[in-house]
Amino acid sequence: MKNVIVGQSGGPTAVINSSLLGVFKTAKDRGADSVYGMVHGIKGLLDRDIVDLSQRFKNDLDNDLLKRTPSSFLGSCRYKLPDLEGNEAVYEKIFNILTELEIYAFFYIGGNDSMDTIKKLTDYGAKIKSPIRFMGVPKTIDNDLAVTDHTPGFGSAAKYIAATTKEIIRDGLVYDYPVVSIIEVMGRNAGWLTAATALAKGEDCEGVDAIYLPEVVFEPDKFLDKVGGLLKEGRSVVIAASEGIKVKDGRYVCELSDHVDYVDAFGHKQLAGTARYLAGEVAKKFGVKTRAIELSSLQRCASHIQSRVDVTEAYNVGGAAVKAAFEGHNGEVITLKRISDDPYMCITEPADVHFIANVEKKVPAEWITEDGTYVTNELIHYIYPLIQAEITPLWVNGLPRHIRLQVGPRHN
Amino acid sequence: MKNVIVGQSGGPTAVINSSLLGVFKTAKDRGADSVYGMVHGIKGLLDRDIVDLSQRFKNDLDNDLLKRTPSSFLGSCRYKLPDLEGNEAVYEKIFNILTELEIYAFFYIGGNDSMDTIKKLTDYGAKIKSPIRFMGVPKTIDNDLAVTDHTPGFGSAAKYIAATTKEIIRDGLVYDYPVVSIIEVMGRNAGWLTAATALAKGEDCEGVDAIYLPEVVFEPDKFLDKVGGLLKEGRSVVIAASEGIKVKDGRYVCELSDHVDYVDAFGHKQLAGTARYLAGEVAKKFGVKTRAIELSSLQRCASHIQSRVDVTEAYNVGGAAVKAAFEGHNGEVITLKRISDDPYMCITEPADVHFIANVEKKVPAEWITEDGTYVTNELIHYIYPLIQAEITPLWVNGLPRHIRLQVGPRHN
Repeated sequence: MKNVIVGQSGGPTAVINSSLLGVFKTAKDRGADSVYGMVHGIKGLLDRDIVDLSQRFKNDLDNDLLKRTPSSFLGSCRYKLPDLEGNEAVYEKIFNILTELEIYAFFYIGGNDSMDTIKKLTDYGAKIKSPIRFMGVPKTIDNDLAVTDHTPGFGSAAKYIAATTKEIIRDGLVYDYPVVSIIEVMGRNAGWLTAATALAKGEDCEGVDAIYLPEVVFEPDKFLDKVGGLLKEGRSVVIAASEGIKVKDGRYVCELSDHVDYVDAFGHKQLAGTARYLAGEVAKKFGVKTRAIELSSLQRCASHIQSRVDVTEAYNVGGAAVKAAFEGHNGEVITLKRISDDPYMCITEPADVHFIANVEKKVPAEWITEDGTYVTNELIHYIYPLIQAEITPLWVNGLPRHIRLQVGPRHN
Repeated sequence: MKNVIVGQSGGPTAVINSSLLGVFKTAKDRGADSVYGMVHGIKGLLDRDIVDLSQRFKNDLDNDLLKRTPSSFLGSCRYKLPDLEGNEAVYEKIFNILTELEIYAFFYIGGNDSMDTIKKLTDYGAKIKSPIRFMGVPKTIDNDLAVTDHTPGFGSAAKYIAATTKEIIRDGLVYDYPVVSIIEVMGRNAGWLTAATALAKGEDCEGVDAIYLPEVVFEPDKFLDKVGGLLKEGRSVVIAASEGIKVKDGRYVCELSDHVDYVDAFGHKQLAGTARYLAGEVAKKFGVKTRAIELSSLQRCASHIQSRVDVTEAYNVGGAAVKAAFEGHNGEVITLKRISDDPYMCITEPADVHFIANVEKKVPAEWITEDGTYVTNELIHYIYPLIQAEITPLWVNGLPRHIRLQVGPRHN
């Protein structure tokens, strides 16, 4: 028996299901008997919550819908495997279940934390001399994975952010009095997504006036000076800021507010957002109308505006993981390697998971302008090919059609 | 000379420029000499800030781009004409400028407030026996204009909201622990846009769990009971709420927070949003993870997901206004009249502006369920045809292409 199993983990993206499809189809094409899906990742596996994907994906229409469905079809989890020492029972349980299911190869689609799962399972497998192969399939809108040129999921999020920024700019400049709009973008530690707002600028768009990345220490006074200077020209201003910008003493900008919205049952403070805080400071100082726009989860689930390059690459890394596993690879992650800029060409290449798990890739300093308020052309050229080309949603009754795991009135 | 002039006013929509195109093309087709545009509405007219639209729209590509460009191409204003009494000078100035320009007909694309401008100009014109014809072209995402079946701009906003709600639902249900997501939708006094979230529900989508409209008095205790009941089923919850919901004593829900983010230079308090407030209450009471998602200005400027029905109707009301004016109508607004539901058919019909200006149309009580937490099928059937069919963006370099009035590095 050549059964394989696949799971999705961490925050969803607009193309994580294309990687699932890449694993499923390639495994079937290469002779896998059953392709199982873990419902809610490794946590579901521990609960034996498993589906046979052949029962779910029966024809090309299902496949086309899967590509266009946002969020993780199989459900996700935030569960991190404990360290092996003292927790052998969890590992034994997982390997027992995998052995019962006669699993030949195990695929996990996710980001940093999920690659840690692959690393730990690989290490344990080596220890007990298990024949099961473990392969990681990269995914994250944050683009913060090491080794790989970029991550599937980033391109579509960047395309959504750049397109939406263009629309916000058109909207923001409509009045005959100055308005300061602040767009808050995801990416707590890495500014890749915030940098994507730079792609809005072009012949038909003024672009944003400043970009604040988490890689640069945020200086509130300089920020207000900058806004003041722009306002002096008598015009509206649009600024992009990462949710993760921090001041010198290490506090997040959103922590500067003396106000806590509420403290939840776990003692987590819910803070006003970065954009709201900055908009407040601008309004206080300059008395102008402000707008705080959080792109929130829309930027990771907007599958109605996918990048075709991203969809294709997401599919390819899933397929390449299966190919590699079937050819004997183990304990690796499929990375993307850019071999040409013009024309843009990227190939897949397996890399040792130990170099990838738990490492965060940030925007390099040389891709940020000297004053720290914009990005360089190199960074724009890096992102540019990743947002190219489109996949049209399958419109049914005026709305994009999706496919979901559970059918019936309610979900999981 | 048969010159005409057109302006755009109030909040922008995704299709307000289709109405501009409808006015421009129909006027040219019917023999207008010059078609002028007021930059920033009536306020720009008073400053003689005027452009000749024939210089801007030269070919079919310009027209196609204009249809797909969000926000008001000509710029907008929030300026309301003062009452005639004691303010004759303003009116004299406007009519002098119009006479200088040899204006035959005047078109104003806007909502309630803008129709008030048409009313006042018509009344003053009648008083001084001016031959100039004044016609209103309806526009507002809020769908709160009287007499007309619906307003251009609403359908595209509703389509964006329903599509985005589907994506948020897929994203919100991904984890194996309960999350309560609250989507805040525009429409301070009328719940039409919030009701559009109901269209998300279908074979492929669970839909939202509850909908709170501003037409219903909001009861915080009942809301928490409802959420508690849904959480008891052990599942994630997605709720839509209008920004304008109010409690019994007339305060907005967002005013219930004891916190004021900041007070601006004009003394305006900036309040935490409705969704943030409700998310805070849910987190405090149930200790679950919550998400507050404000669709903010995205819902009115997302021209990358226009309804084709809406684009066509927006164009048609512009064209019908020109036709009516050229046939002698004056002091009227073009309304949409639904003459058939299945198949959906709508015609245009001029109506006296005095019945439309300053009147707000709300969601009727019989289209809201008895417990006030959802909408009826009648309301869903009413919105359904308005979100149908698509217009593909003109993608250039991976992003939707727009057209703008000013060319050069910065804008108006």
